Amino acid sequence: MTNYNPMYYPNAGKTIRMGRIISPKDGRAAVVAYDHGLHVGTIPGNINPGQMLESLAEAGADAFLVAPGIARTYASIFAGRGAPGLILRLDWTDLWRDPSKLGYPEGRGCLIASVEDAARLGADAVLVYMFIGYENPEAEAQQVESVARVAQDCEALGIGCIIEPMARGLRVGDNPFNAEYIALASRMACELGADLLKTDYSGSAGSFRYVVESSFCPILIAGGPKTTTTREALEMVQGALEAGARGMFVGRNVFQAPQPPLMLKVMRRIIHDGISVDEALDTLGEKNRV
Amino acid sequence: MTNYNPMYYPNAGKTIRMGRIISPKDGRAAVVAYDHGLHVGTIPGNINPGQMLESLAEAGADAFLVAPGIARTYASIFAGRGAPGLILRLDWTDLWRDPSKLGYPEGRGCLIASVEDAARLGADAVLVYMFIGYENPEAEAQQVESVARVAQDCEALGIGCIIEPMARGLRVGDNPFNAEYIALASRMACELGADLLKTDYSGSAGSFRYVVESSFCPILIAGGPKTTTTREALEMVQGALEAGARGMFVGRNVFQAPQPPLMLKVMRRIIHDGISVDEALDTLGEKNRV
Amino acid sequence: MTNYNPMYYPNAGKTIRMGRIISPKDGRAAVVAYDHGLHVGTIPGNINPGQMLESLAEAGADAFLVAPGIARTYASIFAGRGAPGLILRLDWTDLWRDPSKLGYPEGRGCLIASVEDAARLGADAVLVYMFIGYENPEAEAQQVESVARVAQDCEALGIGCIIEPMARGLRVGDNPFNAEYIALASRMACELGADLLKTDYSGSAGSFRYVVESSFCPILIAGGPKTTTTREALEMVQGALEAGARGMFVGRNVFQAPQPPLMLKVMRRIIHDGISVDEALDTLGEKNRV
Amino acid sequence: MTNYNPMYYPNAGKTIRMGRIISPKDGRAAVVAYDHGLHVGTIPGNINPGQMLESLAEAGADAFLVAPGIARTYASIFAGRGAPGLILRLDWTDLWRDPSKLGYPEGRGCLIASVEDAARLGADAVLVYMFIGYENPEAEAQQVESVARVAQDCEALGIGCIIEPMARGLRVGDNPFNAEYIALASRMACELGADLLKTDYSGSAGSFRYVVESSFCPILIAGGPKTTTTREALEMVQGALEAGARGMFVGRNVFQAPQPPLMLKVMRRIIHDGISVDEALDTLGEKNRV
Amino acid sequence: MTNYNPMYYPNAGKTIRMGRIISPKDGRAAVVAYDHGLHVGTIPGNINPGQMLESLAEAGADAFLVAPGIARTYASIFAGRGAPGLILRLDWTDLWRDPSKLGYPEGRGCLIASVEDAARLGADAVLVYMFIGYENPEAEAQQVESVARVAQDCEALGIGCIIEPMARGLRVGDNPFNAEYIALASRMACELGADLLKTDYSGSAGSFRYVVESSFCPILIAGGPKTTTTREALEMVQGALEAGARGMFVGRNVFQAPQPPLMLKVMRRIIHDGISVDEALDTLGEKNRV
Repeated sequence: MTNYNPMYYPNAGKTIRMGRIISPKDGRAAVVAYDHGLHVGTIPGNINPGQMLESLAEAGADAFLVAPGIARTYASIFAGRGAPGLILRLDWTDLWRDPSKLGYPEGRGCLIASVEDAARLGADAVLVYMFIGYENPEAEAQQVESVARVAQDCEALGIGCIIEPMARGLRVGDNPFNAEYIALASRMACELGADLLKTDYSGSAGSFRYVVESSFCPILIAGGPKTTTTREALEMVQGALEAGARGMFVGRNVFQAPQPPLMLKVMRRIIHDGISVDEALDTLGEKNRV
Repeated sequence: MTNYNPMYYPNAGKTIRMGRIISPKDGRAAVVAYDHGLHVGTIPGNINPGQMLESLAEAGADAFLVAPGIARTYASIFAGRGAPGLILRLDWTDLWRDPSKLGYPEGRGCLIASVEDAARLGADAVLVYMFIGYENPEAEAQQVESVARVAQDCEALGIGCIIEPMARGLRVGDNPFNAEYIALASRMACELGADLLKTDYSGSAGSFRYVVESSFCPILIAGGPKTTTTREALEMVQGALEAGARGMFVGRNVFQAPQPPLMLKVMRRIIHDGISVDEALDTLGEKNRV
Repeated sequence: MTNYNPMYYPNAGKTIRMGRIISPKDGRAAVVAYDHGLHVGTIPGNINPGQMLESLAEAGADAFLVAPGIARTYASIFAGRGAPGLILRLDWTDLWRDPSKLGYPEGRGCLIASVEDAARLGADAVLVYMFIGYENPEAEAQQVESVARVAQDCEALGIGCIIEPMARGLRVGDNPFNAEYIALASRMACELGADLLKTDYSGSAGSFRYVVESSFCPILIAGGPKTTTTREALEMVQGALEAGARGMFVGRNVFQAPQPPLMLKVMRRIIHDGISVDEALDTLGEKNRV
Repeated sequence: MTNYNPMYYPNAGKTIRMGRIISPKDGRAAVVAYDHGLHVGTIPGNINPGQMLESLAEAGADAFLVAPGIARTYASIFAGRGAPGLILRLDWTDLWRDPSKLGYPEGRGCLIASVEDAARLGADAVLVYMFIGYENPEAEAQQVESVARVAQDCEALGIGCIIEPMARGLRVGDNPFNAEYIALASRMACELGADLLKTDYSGSAGSFRYVVESSFCPILIAGGPKTTTTREALEMVQGALEAGARGMFVGRNVFQAPQPPLMLKVMRRIIHDGISVDEALDTLGEKNRV
Repeated sequence: MTNYNPMYYPNAGKTIRMGRIISPKDGRAAVVAYDHGLHVGTIPGNINPGQMLESLAEAGADAFLVAPGIARTYASIFAGRGAPGLILRLDWTDLWRDPSKLGYPEGRGCLIASVEDAARLGADAVLVYMFIGYENPEAEAQQVESVARVAQDCEALGIGCIIEPMARGLRVGDNPFNAEYIALASRMACELGADLLKTDYSGSAGSFRYVVESSFCPILIAGGPKTTTTREALEMVQGALEAGARGMFVGRNVFQAPQPPLMLKVMRRIIHDGISVDEALDTLGEKNRV
């Protein structure tokens, strides 16, 4: 019987390009999510994109998730053998803005570039949201349709397809991190043709194992908002790895940390070297143990 | 006068590809429907798609109905002369989810891949729903339009077109299995250009004969939810065959059975060899006679 | 001054193809409409399409109006010099279904194939509805837009364009057969680029003459529902011819008659040979004079 | 400094084709609008399109505005050097129908052919409405979008682009002929890329001068409904010319006149030769001075 | 470490074309916005476009922002080495009209030309609005989608992409010039791929610095409505430059001034030569110091 290796893509372009994001050696990745400006404008840590990206690239980021404007303005960061992989955010949403930023009770999104545009910009993979739980079933269906189109175009062009399934919208209520919801949307995303998922973390290794088992492609968890303590952030990634995730999209917990490069290095060591949360905290030192 | 053989397709590509699904020898098929994850996520029996598909392929599945993600991840199952046919599900719907899975009173659907995408993935045929009975006539018309587009694209590319007509939506009420509704939608699907239908079973050979007579292309019935007893499941397929159907899309009654490969083998014997329900139950043995 | 001959099409493809539908000798046609299954499913007389089409082809049908599924399944009927012309129905509507068939107070329609698809299937002409009178002006405009697109595509590919203008929808009320409405919609269809019209009959030669005068392309009337008596059906076609129509799309009055081929032959004699209603009734004999 | 000549088009195709509509000698034109059947069906004077077009062509019509169906059926009228120019109406609307013709309080429109279709039919220019004043801003924007698309396609294919800006719709109220509204919409149309405008007349030379000054492309006024007296019609065209218009689209005032060719000849003499209204009335003679 | 120069475009076509708008010597520009007629028709100063453009070109305008109709009618102004750059307005909106001009409480917009059309017309860059704050999140998303499409098409064709982000619509309320709103929308526009922004001015150098810092591409401020005094207009541009802007799109403050060419020259001196507001007022002389 064949041994199904979820890191093997039956598509040469995808195998080559996804290999710049998830290490073919250990099948893991510490990716930096740096697309916040696209949806919510400036936040602490994203005022000087070039500087931040450069310092995190030096600290060993496996890849960056960025919008098209960042990708082309700071293209040199992605140039050269060994440079971080480029994951292009292909969609935009007004779901995340709060009322002070002209936000909506239930936002809507759109595609901002095609897979062909991503190829033109030199991207290794593209990433799109897939929301379930809108009040209106047609809104949900329209979004699934565009996610699916992206997935099929990726197949045709040999570009990696990363889907970010999320339970959001007016029908979801208080607990979007419910493992049932995450598992449902994750499985759908696999069936549509995702090569990799970026998912919410359900809060514990036990519950997250169900998400991993429901999915037949690798998962990196989303970092979410900055945690109150550093230990919390580290325990989240450790729990996810324990449950079978392949790593994390780190964002605010890294670039809003006192020393972002150090924080990223420590995250990398948990993900790639398997050090414990206590070892990690020791490495960070007093200053960063918020 | 010409003898109209519904298994003859005036299109070389369709004749070759559909011949990998419906046996050109007896004009019958036992297809495994394995696209549930796309619409409702994980359910019993679909956690390890690779294992299940492999064991059912060995048990003699004529073809599998799967979503694009399964098709490409487990492509090796469809490789080789004599391998099962590949039927690609081209649409997605949020109609089947219950409230605990963020479902809707009346869902909506969308296409998730084109016929050209299906050709790229090596599919022999594609399959789409065609719902009648939505509250809004425009919603019904939009879906018919995309089904029709798929049918015409199949004609152009020589890919089999399987339509799954169903009476659902707020106007349908309590009895979607009404033979009148099934016959109406089935005939429409034939007129649009279906090569094969997947339909609900109306509950008896007598009523289902009307559906068969109304349709000028072959029909395989849909298995529906797992039946309470195994006898029920077996009697359903026998009734359908008696009425003129060419076989069945088996799903939960097989992959949720105690021994899926055995259950499939028995189904195949009813469909291809014409054994009786009692013989079938004997073959299954005590353990599987739920 | 030029003598405008409405049977002359300034387009070689149309001249050749329309010549297989309307006889270039007398400019008349007895076409069989056999697309009912597409919209309303099975009705008396359409259960065995192949048999019925074959017997009516032998009885001299000038052309058949059928949906894509019929056209390709029974393609052999249209093969050979002297075979009936093939008119492909390019649109579908849920307007005609009654509540027992999940119908709507005011339906909506859609295109089910393109003019290019029709060319691929070997059609001589295509036919689409053009409804005026929907409650919502945007719905009316959208349908006109797709009819117009079909007309222009026909011009480009040299395929005949037959438009079926009808006053229907919630604004129309009790009398869709009002000559004013028929004339209005017919003239619009001519202006859009129709090569031939299929219209409702206004009930008398006198009122229908206004429809003919308003139109600058030839007209065949639609048969409508089966009439109570045979005489009624025959008088309808005679009245239409007297008013200047070029013949009729015969449907239920033929294929639901006791002897469809005989009924078609008699209709043909009225249309092509100009026999009287009484002569026609004599030819039909006792049995068919319902 | 360059002398901007509004009759010079920086596009060879437009210069050649528009020169068949507006005389390069005097920059003026008497065009016959004959597209009424498309929107409202038969009206007095449009029952025999071929005859009317031929007699008006002989009487010296500079060009005809017609729908696609007329253009192709009566193509011979536009054949030959010196034949009238062909202006193809590219859009349809249900705005003009009254309730007896199934009209709406505020209609909607659509495109019925593309600029490429117009090129195929041999058109020199195309013409589309541009309505401002719909109740819903999105409806207005959608129409502007399609007008703009037509203008850009004309630029690419070298076909003349004539826009007919009009203040209509529920927000406009009693006075659509307000010079402010006409000037606003006319300027927008120029900015979108019109080569020529067809506008409402504001009722006096004084107020219309503002419209002419606001526009940086030539203007022909629309004739509007048949005036009560002939003098009124003649004074309208004279006032427009005085204000700087380049002529008129004559319609019902010509083809519903007792002697259409004579009426057109007189209109032409006012437009091209500058005769006075009194001279014109003398030429028309008793019979036509309604 | 690389020094990110926001004036360097990693795209040869953009580097060459944007260099005709923003001076490669000082990275600054005084552009004349002359697209008002497209949205609101004639206003003081735009009746004779040719004359005004020619006199401002002579006075040293770095570039003009115009609609397609102006661009092609007055194409000669953009011809020749050293001629002003051509920025084509690609969208239209009914947001700016007041009720007397048939305006709406919350308008809608549309694209009026594609990037390919702009290339055909010889444009160096294109410009589109990007509104945030519509009542309906879907309207906002649809506009972002078309802005993003334009940005990607610019990348492909090497045309400059200028985005004009603005907080407008029913959710915005009294203060659209809030620096938070401007910074949010500006950052989004950068992330989508803008090469240059045209933004509202927040009223003071202090608050505007936040906008500049939030953006990773150069900014020219929009002039806005004519200010009450000339000093106000001059102080606005000086404040913007102080905060880091690269210049201004001057509009009504120039072409509605008593001596537009002189006013433009003075603006240019502030932008390119850094003279003070007092020096500028002296240069303008008594007559222009309103």
